Amino acid sequence: MRHQVCIIGGGPSGLLLSLLLRRAGIDAVVLEQRTRDYVLARIRAGVLEQGLCDLLRAAGVGKRLDAEGFVHDGTIIAAHGQKVHIDFRALTGKTVTIYGQTEVTRDLYDELDRTGAPIFHEAEEVALHDADGDAPHVTFRQHGRSHRIDCDYIAGCDGFHGISRRTIPETVRREYEHVYPFGWLGILSETRPLYRELVYAGHERGFALCSMRNAHLSRHYLQVPLTDKPQDWSDDSFWAELRRRLPPDLADTLVTGPSVEKSIAPLRSFISEPMSWGRLYLAGDAAHIVPPTGAKGLNLAASDVYYLSRALIARYTGDEGLLKSYSATALARVWKASRFSWSMTRMLHDFPAEGEFLQRMQRAEVDYLAGSKAAQTALAENYVGLPY
Amino acid sequence: MRHQVCIIGGGPSGLLLSLLLRRAGIDAVVLEQRTRDYVLARIRAGVLEQGLCDLLRAAGVGKRLDAEGFVHDGTIIAAHGQKVHIDFRALTGKTVTIYGQTEVTRDLYDELDRTGAPIFHEAEEVALHDADGDAPHVTFRQHGRSHRIDCDYIAGCDGFHGISRRTIPETVRREYEHVYPFGWLGILSETRPLYRELVYAGHERGFALCSMRNAHLSRHYLQVPLTDKPQDWSDDSFWAELRRRLPPDLADTLVTGPSVEKSIAPLRSFISEPMSWGRLYLAGDAAHIVPPTGAKGLNLAASDVYYLSRALIARYTGDEGLLKSYSATALARVWKASRFSWSMTRMLHDFPAEGEFLQRMQRAEVDYLAGSKAAQTALAENYVGLPY
Repeated sequence: MRHQVCIIGGGPSGLLLSLLLRRAGIDAVVLEQRTRDYVLARIRAGVLEQGLCDLLRAAGVGKRLDAEGFVHDGTIIAAHGQKVHIDFRALTGKTVTIYGQTEVTRDLYDELDRTGAPIFHEAEEVALHDADGDAPHVTFRQHGRSHRIDCDYIAGCDGFHGISRRTIPETVRREYEHVYPFGWLGILSETRPLYRELVYAGHERGFALCSMRNAHLSRHYLQVPLTDKPQDWSDDSFWAELRRRLPPDLADTLVTGPSVEKSIAPLRSFISEPMSWGRLYLAGDAAHIVPPTGAKGLNLAASDVYYLSRALIARYTGDEGLLKSYSATALARVWKASRFSWSMTRMLHDFPAEGEFLQRMQRAEVDYLAGSKAAQTALAENYVGLPY
Repeated sequence: MRHQVCIIGGGPSGLLLSLLLRRAGIDAVVLEQRTRDYVLARIRAGVLEQGLCDLLRAAGVGKRLDAEGFVHDGTIIAAHGQKVHIDFRALTGKTVTIYGQTEVTRDLYDELDRTGAPIFHEAEEVALHDADGDAPHVTFRQHGRSHRIDCDYIAGCDGFHGISRRTIPETVRREYEHVYPFGWLGILSETRPLYRELVYAGHERGFALCSMRNAHLSRHYLQVPLTDKPQDWSDDSFWAELRRRLPPDLADTLVTGPSVEKSIAPLRSFISEPMSWGRLYLAGDAAHIVPPTGAKGLNLAASDVYYLSRALIARYTGDEGLLKSYSATALARVWKASRFSWSMTRMLHDFPAEGEFLQRMQRAEVDYLAGSKAAQTALAENYVGLPY
């Protein structure tokens, strides 16, 4: 087989890239290790920056997003005795949209199906060859048969554990990692969300987040020690602890119910440089991981896909410049968003090993935020997404 | 002797408080452990917030400040390949004024002398008695003679090492401290300043600051390990290292010359709560220390003095409310300024033990600052001073 671009990974990054290229007349194939059902069952973030929403619309998959997504004009930072409303719209003129990553993925699959785009699921033993040479190709097995795809370019959209980043020699790669000393225990429950916007709570007992998927489906999180297991937490103990970490007026309105999913995720910052090597280009989690505070993961993948699609489209119309600068361009935004995720994590979580001074700095930061339009604007402009 | 207020410490805080009280008809006495010449020989900060300038004018000592001070409309953050001009005036409508703390102290002494205010220098064995009771008094020895001052209130303006804070029982006090793993090596030289504004430099080799006293007197600093001694650094090695940490275009214009003073100071954040106990009220370094990054030390002392003078004046006209809330009011601003000093220190210094991830977060912070008016405004509004 021959395709112009071979995309490794059928998550939202790979699918969106495929669709954007297809719209520009570029022939791209997608290889995904899992089944489509598996991909669609993954529960992930659901806070979409305006830039991602615009990109989905440009790709022709904005219809259900616009009909079913919830536009949020702001968020609440309820921490250390303060309750600060960050009014995105007033401060930046922009908003975010609540729409599950699963729904984005489903919309992308539907549209790719409609256009007859080639996607291989259950692609096993994927290997990248001559990625830094003149004849890049990808081999894999599917349902017992071997395949080879020759291509001009390879896009590595296969996430943190994927093969793409590891195809870049260790002598070329530079990896930066920061592991946070706690995890997030998350539950999904068929209950009314706490508030019409997300509530980020900072408390001496630890961080909490009250998020949502829709008007009847809530997603709540608690900072927990990394040694905790989901089975250590009954639903009752979860709700009781969440209540303790919320301001009393909000805690009083919390509607509880049985959890339909419960899991613990560690928090990590990770960035691998460069994001390109020869004819291989990385996008999304394949190159970087952010802690979930501030909901930047999917949105950063989207800006990578934006830069990469633009660069490939320019390349096929004769200009290779954007492709050469892709890594630097994408990384500039990646580092800034990683900084924001890191700083928001630092502001709101309990870091027991760092002592009381940091706790008081966190409290002072929230007190300052409460009274400063400039600080609120800085938070808001990062939250809604720095410009592409 | 009897005075309404007994002020411990004849540095700028104590002198300014004395003068502000005197202008309101309140009788205050100042006790200072050292000689006047010693106090006037201390080299200290010289970046005055507008709030402090206004307070000095209100106290009747603004004349020389206005004639000889240098108004700075902004500052330069030159770090990690970026050179960011923070335009205080455009961003906040405010400025800072360069005028040495020594000059402030001299102006205050001159004015207090003119009004015949009582000041005891070389006051030894100062002790505070019944500070939490109904008959507070202070005893001390001067030139071999014992004295006792009975008063209504005691103001502790005697710095970090003074007796006032330690008079508050340990069971009442709560102290927060953070010691930074480096010091500042500072030199004074009779050379033209690097630039018309202060230049804060962040570099992988460490922080540097190019400051000034006037058009012919420069004050430069280098981050150095705490194990270094001033004698380890020749003038030549100082200038060579400073040049390395500056952007090339600025380094090329650096004028060097022999140092007239050279010293190393450790960096510390310290806050003691509460700032009052019975009839004792702390102000300035007696209650809190900030690292010099951002020049908040003298300015924080000034806001304490503003709150305390206002509270005492209200008390003598019958309203005790502001005095009761003094500690909370002063501390709210102290914590915010401490946070700013800490965050600016974190952004620009090398923290070798914390690894590459923090270095990249620092670089990302400066990159973000370079492109964000909101972030520049947040830095500027803290630098010129949050409102009293």
